[in-house]
Amino acid sequence: MNKLTTLLIITFICSISYGQKPRARDLGVPFTGETGELNAITDVKGVEVGYSTIISGNGENTIGEGPVRTGVTAIFPRGVAKKFSPVYANWYSLNGNGEMTGTTWVTESGFLETPIMITNTNSVGVVRDAVLKWYVDSNWYGENEEWYTYPVVGETYDGFLNDIYGFHVKEEHVLQAIDNASGGAVAEGNVGGGTGNWTLGFKGGTGTASRIIKIKDSTYTIGVLVQSNFGAKKNLTIAGVPVGVELKDTLNYEFNAPPQSRRQEGDGSIIVIVATDAPVLPHQLKRIVQRVSLGIGIVGGRGGNGYGDIFLAFSTANEGAFNRDSVVTVETIANDLITPLFEGTVQAVEEAIINAMVAAETMEGINGNKLYALPHDLLIEILKKYNRLNE
Amino acid sequence: MNKLTTLLIITFICSISYGQKPRARDLGVPFTGETGELNAITDVKGVEVGYSTIISGNGENTIGEGPVRTGVTAIFPRGVAKKFSPVYANWYSLNGNGEMTGTTWVTESGFLETPIMITNTNSVGVVRDAVLKWYVDSNWYGENEEWYTYPVVGETYDGFLNDIYGFHVKEEHVLQAIDNASGGAVAEGNVGGGTGNWTLGFKGGTGTASRIIKIKDSTYTIGVLVQSNFGAKKNLTIAGVPVGVELKDTLNYEFNAPPQSRRQEGDGSIIVIVATDAPVLPHQLKRIVQRVSLGIGIVGGRGGNGYGDIFLAFSTANEGAFNRDSVVTVETIANDLITPLFEGTVQAVEEAIINAMVAAETMEGINGNKLYALPHDLLIEILKKYNRLNE
Amino acid sequence: MNKLTTLLIITFICSISYGQKPRARDLGVPFTGETGELNAITDVKGVEVGYSTIISGNGENTIGEGPVRTGVTAIFPRGVAKKFSPVYANWYSLNGNGEMTGTTWVTESGFLETPIMITNTNSVGVVRDAVLKWYVDSNWYGENEEWYTYPVVGETYDGFLNDIYGFHVKEEHVLQAIDNASGGAVAEGNVGGGTGNWTLGFKGGTGTASRIIKIKDSTYTIGVLVQSNFGAKKNLTIAGVPVGVELKDTLNYEFNAPPQSRRQEGDGSIIVIVATDAPVLPHQLKRIVQRVSLGIGIVGGRGGNGYGDIFLAFSTANEGAFNRDSVVTVETIANDLITPLFEGTVQAVEEAIINAMVAAETMEGINGNKLYALPHDLLIEILKKYNRLNE
Amino acid sequence: MNKLTTLLIITFICSISYGQKPRARDLGVPFTGETGELNAITDVKGVEVGYSTIISGNGENTIGEGPVRTGVTAIFPRGVAKKFSPVYANWYSLNGNGEMTGTTWVTESGFLETPIMITNTNSVGVVRDAVLKWYVDSNWYGENEEWYTYPVVGETYDGFLNDIYGFHVKEEHVLQAIDNASGGAVAEGNVGGGTGNWTLGFKGGTGTASRIIKIKDSTYTIGVLVQSNFGAKKNLTIAGVPVGVELKDTLNYEFNAPPQSRRQEGDGSIIVIVATDAPVLPHQLKRIVQRVSLGIGIVGGRGGNGYGDIFLAFSTANEGAFNRDSVVTVETIANDLITPLFEGTVQAVEEAIINAMVAAETMEGINGNKLYALPHDLLIEILKKYNRLNE
Repeated sequence: MNKLTTLLIITFICSISYGQKPRARDLGVPFTGETGELNAITDVKGVEVGYSTIISGNGENTIGEGPVRTGVTAIFPRGVAKKFSPVYANWYSLNGNGEMTGTTWVTESGFLETPIMITNTNSVGVVRDAVLKWYVDSNWYGENEEWYTYPVVGETYDGFLNDIYGFHVKEEHVLQAIDNASGGAVAEGNVGGGTGNWTLGFKGGTGTASRIIKIKDSTYTIGVLVQSNFGAKKNLTIAGVPVGVELKDTLNYEFNAPPQSRRQEGDGSIIVIVATDAPVLPHQLKRIVQRVSLGIGIVGGRGGNGYGDIFLAFSTANEGAFNRDSVVTVETIANDLITPLFEGTVQAVEEAIINAMVAAETMEGINGNKLYALPHDLLIEILKKYNRLNE
Repeated sequence: MNKLTTLLIITFICSISYGQKPRARDLGVPFTGETGELNAITDVKGVEVGYSTIISGNGENTIGEGPVRTGVTAIFPRGVAKKFSPVYANWYSLNGNGEMTGTTWVTESGFLETPIMITNTNSVGVVRDAVLKWYVDSNWYGENEEWYTYPVVGETYDGFLNDIYGFHVKEEHVLQAIDNASGGAVAEGNVGGGTGNWTLGFKGGTGTASRIIKIKDSTYTIGVLVQSNFGAKKNLTIAGVPVGVELKDTLNYEFNAPPQSRRQEGDGSIIVIVATDAPVLPHQLKRIVQRVSLGIGIVGGRGGNGYGDIFLAFSTANEGAFNRDSVVTVETIANDLITPLFEGTVQAVEEAIINAMVAAETMEGINGNKLYALPHDLLIEILKKYNRLNE
Repeated sequence: MNKLTTLLIITFICSISYGQKPRARDLGVPFTGETGELNAITDVKGVEVGYSTIISGNGENTIGEGPVRTGVTAIFPRGVAKKFSPVYANWYSLNGNGEMTGTTWVTESGFLETPIMITNTNSVGVVRDAVLKWYVDSNWYGENEEWYTYPVVGETYDGFLNDIYGFHVKEEHVLQAIDNASGGAVAEGNVGGGTGNWTLGFKGGTGTASRIIKIKDSTYTIGVLVQSNFGAKKNLTIAGVPVGVELKDTLNYEFNAPPQSRRQEGDGSIIVIVATDAPVLPHQLKRIVQRVSLGIGIVGGRGGNGYGDIFLAFSTANEGAFNRDSVVTVETIANDLITPLFEGTVQAVEEAIINAMVAAETMEGINGNKLYALPHDLLIEILKKYNRLNE
Repeated sequence: MNKLTTLLIITFICSISYGQKPRARDLGVPFTGETGELNAITDVKGVEVGYSTIISGNGENTIGEGPVRTGVTAIFPRGVAKKFSPVYANWYSLNGNGEMTGTTWVTESGFLETPIMITNTNSVGVVRDAVLKWYVDSNWYGENEEWYTYPVVGETYDGFLNDIYGFHVKEEHVLQAIDNASGGAVAEGNVGGGTGNWTLGFKGGTGTASRIIKIKDSTYTIGVLVQSNFGAKKNLTIAGVPVGVELKDTLNYEFNAPPQSRRQEGDGSIIVIVATDAPVLPHQLKRIVQRVSLGIGIVGGRGGNGYGDIFLAFSTANEGAFNRDSVVTVETIANDLITPLFEGTVQAVEEAIINAMVAAETMEGINGNKLYALPHDLLIEILKKYNRLNE
């Protein structure tokens, strides 16, 4: 449709160099709770994450040509190789100025039947279509061949840096994100659907964290992935410290030319995905997913009018729960034991957002618009000032 | 508080003569689906129903003295002897001009932990308090001794016939309804909380019905109990026949003196309780309970502004589901198999409402106000006219 | 992507011959309530409807080539010429086995900001993208230039007749449906998104109806449009008459070859759009839209597991309600006066579904699969048998 | 029912000495945002608050005799003298292990028609009944004489200090709270329904705060009242400082004898009432009330399983909104302007909870059980340590 000079597209796959980048804990930010091995959503066994990161061009924006700063994120609750293998799920909207397709069936059925895809606001349609095609092409349903599912596709708005009305996400990027899905360490910052995002006044993007929860004799994991693109600088709070107020005079963005923005300045969104291996039923996942708001409040989110703060939680337990023609047996944890899962969710959401900010590098996009990274050195200094630096 | 001339209170217990009264099917009303043995909510094994029916006085109303036409209904999902034994549950409000206490915890926990009590609008508080006291006095919690539950108390408005601001329901009536709870045939019409109700232009009250549902190799039961007090005569539809239009010139009520009514004429409510032994989880019970609206629509309900149309569904399956300190195993039916439970619910709701009308006898209450029973002979005649009489 | 022999595509615009086709009332089906002039959603002033109907090919299915039996429907609450002019709205899901994008923001904001598009299940993405592009190309936002909206796109599944995995809906069809949008009479049956639908055992599709509601000195209109693709023949009930049972031996479909169906046989959906000019606020629209279920129950819908029964209601009153930077004044009708709007909604939903069935002609699609029209002569005969024919 | 030695009941009315007690700001706790004149819910013009505080007895508990540590709080949105004058309202449950009666009608109608009463968990019934009676006795409905409303009664659990199964709240206390309702400064700490509460490890109770919000040329007020009885000490966070961790070895309670507690230790609830004079419609109040969770998260609440965290928000604007027989005109603020109201809500909730803690004095109740006040001196010291003390 538009003449993409494809050669210029440099697609960064998530494999680059994230191992070396410091994460929030590495800088000395104190958090509560015990993390999993990777401090990532992939600490929940089976969960796989894949990205397609689309970065090309510089300078003035030409619709259809770019610059492009966007991408696609794919999350497979049981791994891509497992194919069609629904998980119990539920969702919540703190502020619904956003889109997540497929949620009506999640509410009704109690199941998430598909991967979760996250992209930019204008690419929800193309991603949905590509996933549908891929179901067929990859024989995704296997023996449930005649099944039908509603792709779950969320989004955040990256039009400050990205030529969002150029519709640069294509089927190939969706397939790339899917193909790249894997367990292990998860890239953070300017990757996947979060490539062009900002957070609480600085460059944002994708972040992740996890918590290990001990309940009686069992150990469960909660993993969180955020595509973080929300919030006002003045509210930025890290480990309880009013970092945003302290940094009020620090450069956080440059706005060089009128954006094709279709929202108010200051608007944004955060998509939060919560994974757990604890045996929780759909109504219990509703309880868990509602706690995401608390973690967002703690770092300074207020669910502003322009935000699409939409959250989805799933449980990889109960692998046999989905079944089409019989009564099956599933496990459920006593409600009286569930509070630690709430605590872990709040903690991991808080850390994942800060991780996204710490990982995201300064980025220039369309028309020279620029989002600046949270300055690590100043953050450390401020934490010290408030006696909150872990040394 | 007021000087009740207790001797005048004649409390009719549900044991009287209901065996002989014709039910809707006996009159030849055609319904769809196979009923359980009793065509009652008690066809769901374990369910017990008890009434306290309070009828006293005649003539002009004196607040605090009567006449009184009210009562209390108690439903125990697993029987009163079983004591504290929560069931999975969920609820829905078609029109929330009413009260059902305890529902917030039902939503949150997925459990109904208490009996369901239904009374008149002004007696919700006293019934709630009495149930709380009875928990302790009866050692209801047993080994869960330190537990706390929120009594579930629903209501319909009977102020057209009843001295509702006289607050005649007392703790003793609550205990009576509880003590009388039993399985077996269920009295219908002017009994329990439904004593002073009307329905779709005629005398209403309590009704019940059930359906047997075969799914693969299993047989499940759905039982419904309604406290029916809603609707406009013009919309009364029985077996698809516009009975209300046909009876438009038939006397249905006499209004002899200004009531202490606190609502508009024509207002009302229907409380619907759906029981099943099918293994359904809380989110599946939400699906079932939303279908109650369809049955109400079929007989002519429209969820009018003044109605408190609040429904609750529970499943007696998964007896071990409630647990305070472990992970437990529960059964859930595949969503793909659930539609027959929806069908049975709609069918049983329709029949239970008509059963309530057929059973309810003409009643005179305060100030000589009178609600007339649906005339059986005319009903039969009209069904014949439309070729819908089962003979 | 696929080589569509575009010349073979015959796109039927809604202008053909619908004036002459009998509607349900013309056949003598009795309904309650007073209709608007056109008995259509367009009786609500300003509402415009446009279709793109895509029919091509016959015989065995080749994915990507067809046969094709699908389309797109566009509904503009205030007309396409009015451009961006949000209306108060709300929505409800009786059974969420379906997709309607954009609803999260409807809930949050209280506004529907876009046209409503309805298509087949697999084309939601392409329609969403096309609408987004059209916003820009048509300068849809006008002075709200920097606005952003989430397209509302609903769907029903037509894979029994249509090469649904061929993805035949293209941007051009979306634009065509938009371009064709107009007031006046509304085509019914095999048109737009409803082209390949069935209903309660017979050919279904698009239907419409309206009601005139008098409340005190004011007259309001309720208009309904359905894309009807749901239900089991045995439950088909017309004017209270068990037509489905009566027609149980009548041919209703032929199934010549395995479909690419991704759902169970018997599954389906109904999308219902309710328009009114009554001054109702978003929470009052929630009340109205929940009553749609009652109309569906009356004709025999049960909200089966495989159904995507998703409804949206909007009000064209309060044209100044949407505003970005001030406090504005809006009108709201007293809750005590709202019940007639509920009644009118139930009535219009019932009639719109039957209108869809009466209008839809027998259609053969992929692999010779065929859906038969409801036979008008037999319907008349059956209504007579039950003394329900308006003559 | 039980023989209350009424002479021993010392009912503290809210008039005592609250002027002199320091509030959180007085101690130097830093908060964000501008408060109203009183920093109380009564900064919203018209709002009145009344308490009945019931404190009697000491030592071992005898059910029915005490010790008693409980009460009733009454909040009148437009003042008690105004009588029946509904306000737009909405509500949200972060964790529904609690009761708030009357909410179903709030959702449906968009109106709060009654005062808000808050008491202990076991006294919801008696308070509801007493309010109903008072409606009649006080001619509350005035010209809407035939109206009916559902009393809104919330609760928190005070059984650690209070003989909660003694049912000590009587009709007289309800009337007292109503009679005492007034504007002006609002007592905090051990008063009204919050008398026997604890919060985040220390003595809690009733707290309040307000924010002044400037939006364009208008100034709005948000007022919050909490009945605060929730949370784990380890999570107590004040102005971002981990006060709970710092105070982990400080005595916070003494547990001298098995309580009649019916919940787990550590359980609790927080009832939050948000008042505003901003012109917001019911669906906008839903948005505001959902933000309460964020303020709770910030001080360390996690919505634990045993909590009844139920919130209600109302707007005193649009005095003419409630009307029974016409279309009326109301004002609504643009969604694009609403975010500051969200911010103010979060800020005021945070401060109101800390105010409750700062005001509440150490209290001994049944069986010598004792809840200790948050030590002001240690709090100041800790704030200093983290460079967060306002001096």
